[in-house]
Amino acid sequence: MSVTHPLGFRAAGVTAGFKPSGMPDLGLLVGDTGTTAAALFTTNAVVAAPVEVGRDRVARGRVRAVLVNSGQANAATGARGVDDALATTAEAAALIGAEPDEVVPSSTGVIGEPLHVEQMREAMPALVDELSRDGGDAFARSIMTTDTVSKQAAADADGHRVGGSAKGVGMIAPNLATMLAFITTDAAVAPGDLHDLACEHLAPRFNALTVDGCSSTNDTVLLLASGAAGGEPLVPGSAGWDALAGAVDAVGESLVMQLIADGEGATHVMIVDVEGAANDDDARRAATAVADSPLVKTAVFGGDPNPGRFLQAAGAAGVPIDPSRLDVSIGGVVVATGGLIPPSYFEPASPLAEQAKAAMKEAEVSVRVRLGDGPGTSRAYGCDLSYEYVRINGEYTT
Amino acid sequence: MSVTHPLGFRAAGVTAGFKPSGMPDLGLLVGDTGTTAAALFTTNAVVAAPVEVGRDRVARGRVRAVLVNSGQANAATGARGVDDALATTAEAAALIGAEPDEVVPSSTGVIGEPLHVEQMREAMPALVDELSRDGGDAFARSIMTTDTVSKQAAADADGHRVGGSAKGVGMIAPNLATMLAFITTDAAVAPGDLHDLACEHLAPRFNALTVDGCSSTNDTVLLLASGAAGGEPLVPGSAGWDALAGAVDAVGESLVMQLIADGEGATHVMIVDVEGAANDDDARRAATAVADSPLVKTAVFGGDPNPGRFLQAAGAAGVPIDPSRLDVSIGGVVVATGGLIPPSYFEPASPLAEQAKAAMKEAEVSVRVRLGDGPGTSRAYGCDLSYEYVRINGEYTT
Repeated sequence: MSVTHPLGFRAAGVTAGFKPSGMPDLGLLVGDTGTTAAALFTTNAVVAAPVEVGRDRVARGRVRAVLVNSGQANAATGARGVDDALATTAEAAALIGAEPDEVVPSSTGVIGEPLHVEQMREAMPALVDELSRDGGDAFARSIMTTDTVSKQAAADADGHRVGGSAKGVGMIAPNLATMLAFITTDAAVAPGDLHDLACEHLAPRFNALTVDGCSSTNDTVLLLASGAAGGEPLVPGSAGWDALAGAVDAVGESLVMQLIADGEGATHVMIVDVEGAANDDDARRAATAVADSPLVKTAVFGGDPNPGRFLQAAGAAGVPIDPSRLDVSIGGVVVATGGLIPPSYFEPASPLAEQAKAAMKEAEVSVRVRLGDGPGTSRAYGCDLSYEYVRINGEYTT
Repeated sequence: MSVTHPLGFRAAGVTAGFKPSGMPDLGLLVGDTGTTAAALFTTNAVVAAPVEVGRDRVARGRVRAVLVNSGQANAATGARGVDDALATTAEAAALIGAEPDEVVPSSTGVIGEPLHVEQMREAMPALVDELSRDGGDAFARSIMTTDTVSKQAAADADGHRVGGSAKGVGMIAPNLATMLAFITTDAAVAPGDLHDLACEHLAPRFNALTVDGCSSTNDTVLLLASGAAGGEPLVPGSAGWDALAGAVDAVGESLVMQLIADGEGATHVMIVDVEGAANDDDARRAATAVADSPLVKTAVFGGDPNPGRFLQAAGAAGVPIDPSRLDVSIGGVVVATGGLIPPSYFEPASPLAEQAKAAMKEAEVSVRVRLGDGPGTSRAYGCDLSYEYVRINGEYTT
């Protein structure tokens, strides 16, 4: 139930030897001829070579396959990094009978370390041999870095299928970068419509995901549509479009929740809903500011509501706030209203504080923040900041 | 050698009982009649009652004293908070023979908990009795929250004196908010010129200080000039102005370094210098982004240079970067140049990696980032992210 759930896709994953662990580290996902593609890439000003190459190829509109390695991010590798990405995708293209610009490269791992091109070359024939309709699981495993579980999802929609797999969360890993997500469907969708589908139904979720606020040099969400289910291309408004969009939503939501739950050192997921902002963009900035705040994240780790930290974080987001309409609730327990923390909160054995504390101990901590009376809303997906995050990222030594 | 180093200032600090610890928690700093004032306040959209009142009073131009309590931040306390700030400063003003609007309130501590007005009222006569030319040290101690040492500084300038004390760093404390700094001089300076002095010589430093990126609801830097050294008011360009500005610089720099060194859980100070940005504002954003990055901070804690993390953090700052001119050095060791991490960095027992690692183990880690060929430069003062930060902020329970 992964990227090969939709018709018209084959996938594989093998061990090429890029990672000291010996775990699978080279994956290939191939759509049938006629597959269309859309992609979202990192907004980091420092982009990895595969993002440079991939951005260009997706724009040319012929992409139907992705060659992914874990172990090396092929970022901060200069012209050599681009050459390596071009050479290895050309080789994969030749083996699957495609043109080079039909294959996008994708990498995740150590920033700065060059690709292990020779190892990749040696592993590629076996990788192509392994391609199959059942290869989604092997593919999902091959893209993992410090992920503790593989992330896969699938949904059905009115005769069409949607599948997906993903890895990482932002720059969560010791020095392994990147969130990668690959989502497939067997609906036929023209590239422009597919792009809109990615922007409208995937971008809001994947952009709202934050383990540590660190967008990587390699972040990529690739959406591929094989059309193998048959029928005319779906267009916005046509029969089946809304069902398809709903299935893309469901797969995106599932992958995002799997990613955040596996965030480094995470012991709680935190869902931050902001409402009443001037517009959705302000709401998004405030939701992300709350989810990224080290003081909020350590409060969630410690199970202490500490309402002042939520007010501080919202107030520091750099968006207009009406203090007299500023409300915060945690798991439905109102801990600030009209910008005011009820004084009863600070009384000994305060029932309000006890309720809020109980809400902070849930596996999924739900935070709701109202900024004012505007129409803007947004949701951010975050997690807590634990000792384990510091251990993983502090004790690692190159 | 503190806020009472300049002539024309008296100060005191006593225990009023706001803090469970029983440590001093109420301070008063009074300048002679004729003292001028300028202030920098938090940019957080959620501001504490004392900031609301203080902003207004500084704007009216008569401020010559500050009444500071630690223990309660008087933030998120609504109209009651403003009433409490007005009532307690009026009482202090009456006791020192000043008008109410000559005294600004300043608070640091728990957000949401109302001021303990009765305790403050009871302690105030003793506080005023204690006012003296030697009271700078007692004042500096009374404003501490989780600070482990008091922060004081002084400098002399061409016949004038400058002094200062400060506490906290951003929202560093369990739920005690706020960075407060009080800087005094016995030069005579008109309010407008004093404001320029604060903006030009204090703002760049105090705005570049970041323990956890969390600006509080109460942050305040107050600059008072008593004129008690005698002589005509100094104006920009007059004899003595540059020396005064230099002494203000020195006191500001000393306080900022004392604050960051005492940042919660800090085991290393990190000084990030950015150059080559399009302008100083872009440079400031990039420097702060690097200093605030959890991945950079944990790398500094772990003593591992991990150059990709510095590139990622600079790239994510949201400012233009020329990747081909992007350089990073740590303690003078170049770990990325032209956007490229030298491949030799990843070789076994790489001398380059060893040098960088040694530079990361210094008590003060110096990071230099070039973004391009522009004229913009800036410095950020940060620290690492340790287990202790998580313990202090995660294990605290209200």
